[in-house]
Amino acid sequence: MSITQNTTRSRKQADWDKDDIETLMRGLGETAREAARALAHASTEQKDDALRAAAAALRSNKVQILEANARDIQHGRERGLRDSLIDRLALDGSRVEGIASGLEAIASLPDPVGSVIETWTRPNGLEISRVRMPLGVIGIIYESRPNVTADAGGICLKSGNAAILRGGSESLYSSAAIVDCIHQGLRMARLPEAVVQIVPTRDRAAVGYLLTMPDLVDIIVPRGGKSLIERVQKESRIPLIAHLEGLCHVYLDAGADTEMARAITLNAKMRRTSVCGAAETLLIDRAAAARLLPPVVRDLLEAGCEVRGDKGTRALVQDIIAATDADWDTEYLDAILSIRLVDGVAGALEHIAAHGSEHTDTIVTNDFKTAETFLKQVDSAIVLHNASTQFADGGEFGMGAEIGISTGRLHARGPVGTEQLTSFKYVVRGAGQVRL
Amino acid sequence: MSITQNTTRSRKQADWDKDDIETLMRGLGETAREAARALAHASTEQKDDALRAAAAALRSNKVQILEANARDIQHGRERGLRDSLIDRLALDGSRVEGIASGLEAIASLPDPVGSVIETWTRPNGLEISRVRMPLGVIGIIYESRPNVTADAGGICLKSGNAAILRGGSESLYSSAAIVDCIHQGLRMARLPEAVVQIVPTRDRAAVGYLLTMPDLVDIIVPRGGKSLIERVQKESRIPLIAHLEGLCHVYLDAGADTEMARAITLNAKMRRTSVCGAAETLLIDRAAAARLLPPVVRDLLEAGCEVRGDKGTRALVQDIIAATDADWDTEYLDAILSIRLVDGVAGALEHIAAHGSEHTDTIVTNDFKTAETFLKQVDSAIVLHNASTQFADGGEFGMGAEIGISTGRLHARGPVGTEQLTSFKYVVRGAGQVRL
Repeated sequence: MSITQNTTRSRKQADWDKDDIETLMRGLGETAREAARALAHASTEQKDDALRAAAAALRSNKVQILEANARDIQHGRERGLRDSLIDRLALDGSRVEGIASGLEAIASLPDPVGSVIETWTRPNGLEISRVRMPLGVIGIIYESRPNVTADAGGICLKSGNAAILRGGSESLYSSAAIVDCIHQGLRMARLPEAVVQIVPTRDRAAVGYLLTMPDLVDIIVPRGGKSLIERVQKESRIPLIAHLEGLCHVYLDAGADTEMARAITLNAKMRRTSVCGAAETLLIDRAAAARLLPPVVRDLLEAGCEVRGDKGTRALVQDIIAATDADWDTEYLDAILSIRLVDGVAGALEHIAAHGSEHTDTIVTNDFKTAETFLKQVDSAIVLHNASTQFADGGEFGMGAEIGISTGRLHARGPVGTEQLTSFKYVVRGAGQVRL
Repeated sequence: MSITQNTTRSRKQADWDKDDIETLMRGLGETAREAARALAHASTEQKDDALRAAAAALRSNKVQILEANARDIQHGRERGLRDSLIDRLALDGSRVEGIASGLEAIASLPDPVGSVIETWTRPNGLEISRVRMPLGVIGIIYESRPNVTADAGGICLKSGNAAILRGGSESLYSSAAIVDCIHQGLRMARLPEAVVQIVPTRDRAAVGYLLTMPDLVDIIVPRGGKSLIERVQKESRIPLIAHLEGLCHVYLDAGADTEMARAITLNAKMRRTSVCGAAETLLIDRAAAARLLPPVVRDLLEAGCEVRGDKGTRALVQDIIAATDADWDTEYLDAILSIRLVDGVAGALEHIAAHGSEHTDTIVTNDFKTAETFLKQVDSAIVLHNASTQFADGGEFGMGAEIGISTGRLHARGPVGTEQLTSFKYVVRGAGQVRL
């Protein structure tokens, strides 16, 4: 496996002083900007070739990647990293294969760049088209999973953007080994290696510089826990595509079918509890609580979920723990659910407006008029009717790969796939028209 | 004419201390946020009624508006405002009529809110729709023309957004009088007056607060000269929709028809020299300079345009003044044009990449292959073939009203009309689906 210069430097020079880091980060930014210009006009075939060649390199360098990962794990153990974080960090042969096939899946997605969004002709004969083009340079800040290095790099490459990746410092060796493989792919396709770069230092000051180079970085995508997002939101001088948290609600309306209410609630909470689309609070229409609450709670308890509820719920079901006010504002990301009785859809809307995170919320009801009220008035990126909140995912939306989910209102909202990482320009075709 | 409380306060209290201004600005932001929530679910009819009633109020309060404008002009003269600025500020009966009919034109535009951008069905039966919704609260900072107060307020209202308007301090009385009329319209339609608010103080510190309340303001639209935009870019903690300058190019390729080249160049430069879509630099293919340059320059000189050029151009036409390096980076916004000979489309692309502002550029040629190269590779919000750069305008694009032109790559790019002031949400309709 070839080791790129940056990686070598990162291994030799563990400590950088402030000026060095600023120079390093601006250097990464300038190289990325230049690479983005070249990539913007690359053909789909060239980009897909790079992705497929990178996947092949990942497979043929499996041993070296696992060695690098072992060094990260050893380094993590020495620093006393928790077992759960070591688990997130650890790669094995099948995980490397998964990373490689992930890149191939990105190669098989349609290329958004150059696609015509809409075309219209003006009365004076001008033909105006809106054509997709890349955003430019994307800075991605994420926590320790090394697979994100390949996913994020691949999705940026496909959408014509250069990526500057700042992974969890625990995974630096693994990420560098993965990026080496992506560089092999880029070289094979005659694209600049700097299309995908990693920040080659563990120093946290590097993030500070990355967030404050609006001339060199067009957008920041932070992926991680609430504290990471909060730091990035506070420090960034560059627009973000992000969500702070996914405090998702399931509302069971009086019009809900009992079996559907049970299935959706159980799935929304328990399918995977650590994803942003997992439900955290269940709202039940007071008018149907006696019918809906007992079987729903029974399912949850049987599945190992802790159930906390307000007075109304505890009057109906004994095994519910008393919820506190803090519960309505807590994203557990764990097998815990808070339940509250509300007065119909109006009560649910009021609770969600006060406590939601504008991420994903669902209503279960066979009353379609009530459903439309909920779909219209809940102010979240994703609102569902009679479906689980766990569908909040680019893959489930048919977008293929995604880089995250946005709760922002600017540019991208909801799952962020290749198309959401593009901008557009207007192409106007005339026959000599001048303006009156 | 009813005078709103804010306006009364602004007239009595000319000076605010810092704490007062912060309180004032956060108060405006909180009221705007609340108004935006109510407006988001208002019907198209209600919004259009408000716009039409505001237009009627402008007409029936013409005398009071002109009185307020006279006070602004008197205040301006006392402060020694230049005549050209007094001219921009001055209203008369027909200008007020123009403002009123502008609001009616916005009322007759389609309502973007609630429109379905796209819908698709997943293999599991989930039906996913992307539905337009407002952005929220928009802060608009502009220079002295009072008509912008109505245009900007109207376009925000129509797109379901609350507006906080900070006009030129010279036009404060006029703007307040116009906003009073908009408030009458909003009241008539039972919408909150706070949908459109003006900053009721001339203190420049107010802008600083407006730019640093990301919790209360979703987007800033600065409209004005380069120094205003630069200040806003530097200070803002909120994403901007803006362009810094419009350094637009006309490129006359060897494949250009002489008559078309003449007509487009003259129009692109001289139709109106003060608009952002006016051409500032003309690039001519060296291979056809002897044919194209002389008649083009003659037209420009006859129209009263100063012509500056590089050595090559001056060797061909005597009346061209020597251009300096600074000319290629200057947005004249005046009857001045710089001309340079370049080596074909590659030379034009290189010049535009180095000196352009990513706003609007055009190629004149009958060689369609060369045109496609230009359209693909020029990295501007608007690229044209065989048409004047002065078409860079929302009205000319068929968008109706616009709030400005964006050279950004995030969210909106090119002319910014009602649709560009919206976000979207995903509405997902299911039949009990849970995720595997």
